[in-house]
Amino acid sequence: MSDIAMIEAAAERARGHVRRTPLLSSPFLDEMAGRQVLVKAECLQHTGSFKFRGGWSALSGLEPSVRAKGVLAFSSGNHAQGVALAARLHGVPATIIMPADAPALKIDNTRGLGAEVVLYDRAGGEDRNEIGARMQGERGLTLIKPFDEPLVIAGQGTCGLEIAEQAAGIGVTGAEVLTCCGGGGLTSGIALALQAHAPAMRVRPVEPEGFDDTARSLAAGRIVANTGTESGFCDAILTPSPGQITFPVMAARCGPGLVVSDAEVRAAMRAAFLRLKLVLEPGGAVALAAALYHGAALAGDTVIVTASGGNVDAALYAEVLSDGPD
Amino acid sequence: MSDIAMIEAAAERARGHVRRTPLLSSPFLDEMAGRQVLVKAECLQHTGSFKFRGGWSALSGLEPSVRAKGVLAFSSGNHAQGVALAARLHGVPATIIMPADAPALKIDNTRGLGAEVVLYDRAGGEDRNEIGARMQGERGLTLIKPFDEPLVIAGQGTCGLEIAEQAAGIGVTGAEVLTCCGGGGLTSGIALALQAHAPAMRVRPVEPEGFDDTARSLAAGRIVANTGTESGFCDAILTPSPGQITFPVMAARCGPGLVVSDAEVRAAMRAAFLRLKLVLEPGGAVALAAALYHGAALAGDTVIVTASGGNVDAALYAEVLSDGPD
Repeated sequence: MSDIAMIEAAAERARGHVRRTPLLSSPFLDEMAGRQVLVKAECLQHTGSFKFRGGWSALSGLEPSVRAKGVLAFSSGNHAQGVALAARLHGVPATIIMPADAPALKIDNTRGLGAEVVLYDRAGGEDRNEIGARMQGERGLTLIKPFDEPLVIAGQGTCGLEIAEQAAGIGVTGAEVLTCCGGGGLTSGIALALQAHAPAMRVRPVEPEGFDDTARSLAAGRIVANTGTESGFCDAILTPSPGQITFPVMAARCGPGLVVSDAEVRAAMRAAFLRLKLVLEPGGAVALAAALYHGAALAGDTVIVTASGGNVDAALYAEVLSDGPD
Repeated sequence: MSDIAMIEAAAERARGHVRRTPLLSSPFLDEMAGRQVLVKAECLQHTGSFKFRGGWSALSGLEPSVRAKGVLAFSSGNHAQGVALAARLHGVPATIIMPADAPALKIDNTRGLGAEVVLYDRAGGEDRNEIGARMQGERGLTLIKPFDEPLVIAGQGTCGLEIAEQAAGIGVTGAEVLTCCGGGGLTSGIALALQAHAPAMRVRPVEPEGFDDTARSLAAGRIVANTGTESGFCDAILTPSPGQITFPVMAARCGPGLVVSDAEVRAAMRAAFLRLKLVLEPGGAVALAAALYHGAALAGDTVIVTASGGNVDAALYAEVLSDGPD
């Protein structure tokens, strides 16, 4: 179980390594939303997403003799890059198991950050868990899970510590805090941090239509999985269900989930381009989309949104820009 | 004449109003450049460019009774928005004289920031200086020049104070500092700030091919103007010649100018998209282009670049992304 002491310890280990990202704003976004909008620009974090916080926390929190043997992660995207860079900076090997049909850019980036990438054939029925278990056994690697892991949650929680401090610095102590929510690592980490440091703030997880497992789980009071397709526009946050560790935290501390359409996500990506000069990937823009287009579901004069990642292909981004103006 | 005392006074007036922009980096850019690259992300400044620094400095530095009558600026772009927002935040009227054929978005933004926009017909031979002089006389407005104005230079110099402090914070005290250079307001302001606070750094102005008036002026030891066309890809920095105030500062304190091609600027815009998640406009990407593609002309292990603005149309940006990969 993660708690505020673990988050503060993660922040201590992160000092000088994890970037303190800015809290941005624009009068044009305020006008669109009908309230003050503050944007936590995690796309500016090392590796282009908040995932480096969790990767750094996990690597720096391992027993050195264990860490020296290396780490293992399953990921086709942002977690892969976060773990790869954190391992490289710790001088230990990282092995990342990625589907062979992952975007070439993400495979190249992960290799470019020094990781050994092991590709497996999703369609051909290879089982990544089997491959991973074999490599753990042979090499003594430590598995770094993407969200349901206390050290990772504690790392993502450092984003919440910064939000509390930066908002207080401009006189904001109460707000709804919208998070881009996949498995709930970022959401539960921020919720724990704010509970301790900004108790008048309330976290609201945001998900894309068709992948609203967290919203439905929160409504049901128990973990409910998505059914059907595994792929979608917001690729970074399409997890099948909230985690065994993250869900109880979210159930205890978050307000109801919000659900946005792909069209709203595209419009939010364009708004971030135009008004903030930030590149957001689809999964990193869902919280901003909720702030801009679901204002009726929000309370208060200020909304804080995480802009959690910016790892989007140029061709897709150009296509999204060409859809506008809204 | 601007000096370090004016810059420090501008920084004092800016506290809590001007954004302290982050100094970003990426291991991929370091590898491309063959040295450490630090990027001062001024595109994240209010209004999307460093121009808000100068606008705020000018407005906040005026005698209150003078300021209350309002301010006037000529601009088709970033200076217009910087002055408009600074005036609005001071609660005084701003009048911006813009060419009728300026991009609709920039006219809309300037109006959206509360300024009165007066359009004139460039092609029809209307003289903007006459229009401006008449409005100054009738209304008692104070003209805020875009670069050859001590209060504006002092405001841009606050960017240099931040560079010195942020670089020192990560152990960097010596570096070449590449600036995106139009009339020289940002370049001379940063040069003055670094002279006082990071004397081992040297400023190098960067310009696009065909508009290298500053590089040629520095080489000649006197002000030399551009000849020929007034329009080009890097619209924000296409001034006819360095200023009467800015040139002597640059001549005394800057190293030789650097000149980049439009193709290099496009590649730098793509690199900022991919590696930093920053939206840069062409004129805001020339310094990064020089760092990435003119490394042989640079000295030292670290280069610092200003990424001075991000106000680019979505259609043009999509086109630039579609050119790649490089």
